[in-house]
Amino acid sequence: MKYIRDTLYGFIKLDGRFIDLMDTPEFQRLRRVTQLGFTPIVYPTATHTRFEHSLGVFHLACEMRKKFDTGDDFLAAALLHDLGHVPFSHAAEWIMKSAIGKNHVDITVERIKSMEGVLERNGFDVKKVCELIRGKGKYGQLLSGDIDIDRMDYLVRDSYYTGVAYGVINPDSVIRRLRFRGNVLGVNLSDIHVVESLLVARSWMMPAVYLHKTTRIANSMFSRGLIELMEHLDMEEFSEGDEHDAVRIFRDSCGLPSELWKRIENRNLYKEGLRLTRKDFSSREIGKVIKLRADPLRFRDIENRIAEELGLNEGEVLLNIPEKPVFMESNLMVLDENKKLEKISKIVSGIVESEWNYWYVGVYSRKERRKLIGRNRERIKELILHG
Amino acid sequence: MKYIRDTLYGFIKLDGRFIDLMDTPEFQRLRRVTQLGFTPIVYPTATHTRFEHSLGVFHLACEMRKKFDTGDDFLAAALLHDLGHVPFSHAAEWIMKSAIGKNHVDITVERIKSMEGVLERNGFDVKKVCELIRGKGKYGQLLSGDIDIDRMDYLVRDSYYTGVAYGVINPDSVIRRLRFRGNVLGVNLSDIHVVESLLVARSWMMPAVYLHKTTRIANSMFSRGLIELMEHLDMEEFSEGDEHDAVRIFRDSCGLPSELWKRIENRNLYKEGLRLTRKDFSSREIGKVIKLRADPLRFRDIENRIAEELGLNEGEVLLNIPEKPVFMESNLMVLDENKKLEKISKIVSGIVESEWNYWYVGVYSRKERRKLIGRNRERIKELILHG
Amino acid sequence: MKYIRDTLYGFIKLDGRFIDLMDTPEFQRLRRVTQLGFTPIVYPTATHTRFEHSLGVFHLACEMRKKFDTGDDFLAAALLHDLGHVPFSHAAEWIMKSAIGKNHVDITVERIKSMEGVLERNGFDVKKVCELIRGKGKYGQLLSGDIDIDRMDYLVRDSYYTGVAYGVINPDSVIRRLRFRGNVLGVNLSDIHVVESLLVARSWMMPAVYLHKTTRIANSMFSRGLIELMEHLDMEEFSEGDEHDAVRIFRDSCGLPSELWKRIENRNLYKEGLRLTRKDFSSREIGKVIKLRADPLRFRDIENRIAEELGLNEGEVLLNIPEKPVFMESNLMVLDENKKLEKISKIVSGIVESEWNYWYVGVYSRKERRKLIGRNRERIKELILHG
Amino acid sequence: MKYIRDTLYGFIKLDGRFIDLMDTPEFQRLRRVTQLGFTPIVYPTATHTRFEHSLGVFHLACEMRKKFDTGDDFLAAALLHDLGHVPFSHAAEWIMKSAIGKNHVDITVERIKSMEGVLERNGFDVKKVCELIRGKGKYGQLLSGDIDIDRMDYLVRDSYYTGVAYGVINPDSVIRRLRFRGNVLGVNLSDIHVVESLLVARSWMMPAVYLHKTTRIANSMFSRGLIELMEHLDMEEFSEGDEHDAVRIFRDSCGLPSELWKRIENRNLYKEGLRLTRKDFSSREIGKVIKLRADPLRFRDIENRIAEELGLNEGEVLLNIPEKPVFMESNLMVLDENKKLEKISKIVSGIVESEWNYWYVGVYSRKERRKLIGRNRERIKELILHG
Repeated sequence: MKYIRDTLYGFIKLDGRFIDLMDTPEFQRLRRVTQLGFTPIVYPTATHTRFEHSLGVFHLACEMRKKFDTGDDFLAAALLHDLGHVPFSHAAEWIMKSAIGKNHVDITVERIKSMEGVLERNGFDVKKVCELIRGKGKYGQLLSGDIDIDRMDYLVRDSYYTGVAYGVINPDSVIRRLRFRGNVLGVNLSDIHVVESLLVARSWMMPAVYLHKTTRIANSMFSRGLIELMEHLDMEEFSEGDEHDAVRIFRDSCGLPSELWKRIENRNLYKEGLRLTRKDFSSREIGKVIKLRADPLRFRDIENRIAEELGLNEGEVLLNIPEKPVFMESNLMVLDENKKLEKISKIVSGIVESEWNYWYVGVYSRKERRKLIGRNRERIKELILHG
Repeated sequence: MKYIRDTLYGFIKLDGRFIDLMDTPEFQRLRRVTQLGFTPIVYPTATHTRFEHSLGVFHLACEMRKKFDTGDDFLAAALLHDLGHVPFSHAAEWIMKSAIGKNHVDITVERIKSMEGVLERNGFDVKKVCELIRGKGKYGQLLSGDIDIDRMDYLVRDSYYTGVAYGVINPDSVIRRLRFRGNVLGVNLSDIHVVESLLVARSWMMPAVYLHKTTRIANSMFSRGLIELMEHLDMEEFSEGDEHDAVRIFRDSCGLPSELWKRIENRNLYKEGLRLTRKDFSSREIGKVIKLRADPLRFRDIENRIAEELGLNEGEVLLNIPEKPVFMESNLMVLDENKKLEKISKIVSGIVESEWNYWYVGVYSRKERRKLIGRNRERIKELILHG
Repeated sequence: MKYIRDTLYGFIKLDGRFIDLMDTPEFQRLRRVTQLGFTPIVYPTATHTRFEHSLGVFHLACEMRKKFDTGDDFLAAALLHDLGHVPFSHAAEWIMKSAIGKNHVDITVERIKSMEGVLERNGFDVKKVCELIRGKGKYGQLLSGDIDIDRMDYLVRDSYYTGVAYGVINPDSVIRRLRFRGNVLGVNLSDIHVVESLLVARSWMMPAVYLHKTTRIANSMFSRGLIELMEHLDMEEFSEGDEHDAVRIFRDSCGLPSELWKRIENRNLYKEGLRLTRKDFSSREIGKVIKLRADPLRFRDIENRIAEELGLNEGEVLLNIPEKPVFMESNLMVLDENKKLEKISKIVSGIVESEWNYWYVGVYSRKERRKLIGRNRERIKELILHG
Repeated sequence: MKYIRDTLYGFIKLDGRFIDLMDTPEFQRLRRVTQLGFTPIVYPTATHTRFEHSLGVFHLACEMRKKFDTGDDFLAAALLHDLGHVPFSHAAEWIMKSAIGKNHVDITVERIKSMEGVLERNGFDVKKVCELIRGKGKYGQLLSGDIDIDRMDYLVRDSYYTGVAYGVINPDSVIRRLRFRGNVLGVNLSDIHVVESLLVARSWMMPAVYLHKTTRIANSMFSRGLIELMEHLDMEEFSEGDEHDAVRIFRDSCGLPSELWKRIENRNLYKEGLRLTRKDFSSREIGKVIKLRADPLRFRDIENRIAEELGLNEGEVLLNIPEKPVFMESNLMVLDENKKLEKISKIVSGIVESEWNYWYVGVYSRKERRKLIGRNRERIKELILHG
């Protein structure tokens, strides 16, 4: 039995089976993948890693286990659920997806399958673990679903390390209030504020942290660099590396990726020249814009077209297009009312609508090009849509 | 210069002028008036007093003073703003209001006028202090308004001492984001989540703490006792006393007040037999029900009528009718959009609607009468409306 | 199963047996006995009660129970261990001891015996519970001994509510490191810093909180009042009351007790005029001085003799004589070295010596008499020793 | 004016002059130098960097500035005081010292001189800043002396991120209590517990964190690797790099450094086979042993000699020799007693002695060689002394 100290939960206890999982190179690699990528540029204290987050989710899984008959595969799934995150994943994942056709869940599942030996030796069922990680089954939703322990941990942890209070929720309270009716997860009417607190916390962490204006700029600079590099890189290998590997690739690069990277390192970032919000587009257009995320090369072409039109060099105009707000929580049931939470809680339905408030296309360039960008709003929009 | 240690803010600094105000019997009395009355029955750790809350609000006022040109009367007003709270004020104030025609703000203002000497000796303007406490003027709204330092302190403080995380906000962050345009207080669009956090925090503290089911029962038991006693008491004197005085009055009483009080002390509370929610009434009816709060003797008559009809003794049926949700925050402006916050934030408009969710009439009795109460729903409703 | 929220430990879980114990008038009375008496005069936020402390110690007992085979009587003993504390016990206990011949442990044991019914009904052994409370037996020392859960809780709790960081220790860490060899409690050499942290924390809380200069003055004012009243009071009854009762007695009193009490309420305290430290006395003399605590009437006579000599009225000179530093921790064994901790840890032996630094006789009077007191150092010392 | 959020102090405010300093590549590099090197192997949450620590020390310097007339060069010195730390400095600094003849303070001073432009442009005096960093002058001791803000910040910060409570002190309280008499820094007798808290906190953090057994093993593995590499590396360049650079060097290496590094990454560490404590040596011998730190190549030779004697390969036996405990705090004066703190506080003199308790030579090898090492205690000691 091993006790690992955690800043949030005191001691996390792991028995020998989980220590075996923890002491694999696959898991130790998570020490070198940060939770929030470039966020420390804004919040210098947010240097925490996927390693400690994974231990935290494991701890919450143990609390769930005390309450529901989840089985021990659930604990293994909680511990290993983030194995597949790539370096700087917020900025890299959409490019990875296009390059190798896998998102971090796919990679996680693949990696877990490759660890069959250590899992089976310790009595775990690889197939069940993978299903749980994909959010399948009654207990899968506790790990990846409407109100899951992954989110509970990252909200509290990201709040703790950024110093932003908005994510301060009580995982204990949430776990205590969750109920099952058959396979349906829910809460009672008198407890909905506990669930609201989780959803609202995430909603505030969006503008304050996850979609912070400055972090988005750094992400775009990294993404563009990675797009430049992707043709010459083994992206499968990139996905297996850690952040030291990624840094090395950028430092060894030349031209645009190298230049963008140096700017990130020295906090000499591009500035926002233009913001195209939801109101600037029809809803069909928004769909079209978001689809650009599926094709990084075409994404780059548009960046280049805009630069060209403005008389700038390639790489002097960068875009940031967030993904579509995915808000799945509305499926949670208020059991004693037999209605979806969204139908009952005005706060929750308010959040669902407000998620789009944080969605906007950012257009970035060097400080001195800011005004030039701002002046060409319509043309830039045109190029993004039809470029 | 005196430094007083506070659990939330570290050291609170007071210069000689404020120490003079603090060392009056009127202010020292606040040591013996708890912030949350009977709440420790539910949350045993919530024993904090109006004294420390007042110091906390003073501290936040000093922070505001650094940012806005509020003048020093603002600081005095912050320190003294709660002078008029009566013992167990959540349960007693509506009865006081009927008996002596003053609420806690009226009493505060009266008391401050009686302290003219010490205020003027220290260079404060009594009239201005009173106006600020009434929320008047440009800076009055920072003390008693949409987004005020009173609320900021009590949310954080009540969270800290109950252990409920929902009220955890960052007063510093809120203060940093507030702006004036002329006399209009507001925030910029990009900062609305900071204000939302304050409003939502209050909204969750409602069911979790301020309107907690069990606290409401204890409040009703105390209120009924006080109604019984009010004819024989000098209520003006009661309002000047502290909680030791109030306890003494109840311990010295006989009959129903004495019996109810003993039950409160021994946590042998009545139970909820029935809950009549907003949906049970038309909106005209709700208005009528709430108006009962204005006439405690009539309120008691209805309790007695219900008891009589059910074959119970006087005092065996108690009601709890919360006041009308007063949600004034919607006036806050989003300055760069020139719109009210309520029009822009779906979360805020969601809260405004959801405030009514916590409003219900509770009908309480001894444990063994619970079912009897529950069976007579329609008749009880009838009596509340027309009894 | 009941969950009670605690600010320090999150949720404290009690099963039906302990709820039965908690819902006795004897235990509910602890809601109205504060942990730190007059300390809020200095630290306004320190208003916590013996009730929550008792729940906290119960929680730590449950943690101990997971590690050692303590049995369930240990849990009951933890919950009930403070039942016998009298109102304002730091200031009143020495007078109670003289008046009724019992200290708080004696009263606790007596009271538990009177609760035989509820204890036996829930399967507890009254005799064993009482022995554990007296610190007897292998597990008794975990409750009242060198390194006990009572102290762990009060150090952390008193730190939390005063805002003083010195008592911040990790009860979890301490519990994890404790070991038994047979019936001997100890730690291993590599863990002594964990135990040191507990002892040093207490050592700092002494000057910062428990023996704070100003609190000692308020204590002396209360003590003198109680000595005046003791002849006319049923002290047995006083010991059964709560702090509302004690306040009432003082408010109803006249003459000196009434006057001293009003001064306490309005923070209009006596001031220290003189401090006689250990160096002012031989060690035989110190013993003699401390013995005065055993005879409150003689103690008062000396106060009066001093006043008389200085031409002051009775009650204008008050003394404060702390008890002898009792430092029992030195018995703890460092198991793998087979030596007492005190022999191994220089920090611990340093504390043992430094305990005496905080011991001094305070001589108090009205502000304007301060200098008069100061000038008569030798004569006052003389009277204390031989008066 | 910029506000940077810090987990410990809320917002840290920097005006334009300090932002200019912060936005240099020299300072931004500190984002990529961790505070505690390999400590996350033991405490996974301790991933904080020298960047945030530097901001924290700057914040405390601003607090000092409010109290003492330190001038603004003091603030610049606080911000820049750690510029010269090399990657994994706890494990690398002694080797750097030997290779390039500079410790981290020397490098800091050198680097600051190279930043003359930005410093002078913002009105700072390079010479004064460097003197302050070397702890010279009246105010230099507040930055690098007996009771300095560097230590205050790192104790609290390292506690926060490891989750170990021992370092929890109140920097505010310490700062408030510090006094100068002429150029002599001290405290009053009644405040010594505040200073004791700082010294004791450091004393406990030693075994719990800074000299944690497992971290020491990882340090030794890294050190040996670096010794192997030093002949082929430009160590000056190494000192200018960040931890990404250091990782790269090790990953690109072959043979022993590569093998040791892989073990560190996969938490497949050597184990302690033997511990030679102070009691195993005469005090002359201890001096001799510690001197080995000055000559890394000779240090390696001894490791190799031991390995050879035990029939093991080069690199299979590693040593860890901590530096001499440097305890300078004892110079602090108790001003109103006109004595050194050490003469007055038994706790402080206890610490001074106990510092040596944590000093021991660790002898490490692969798990399966542990017993072999243990059996050869005398021979290994012999070789360390005379090898």
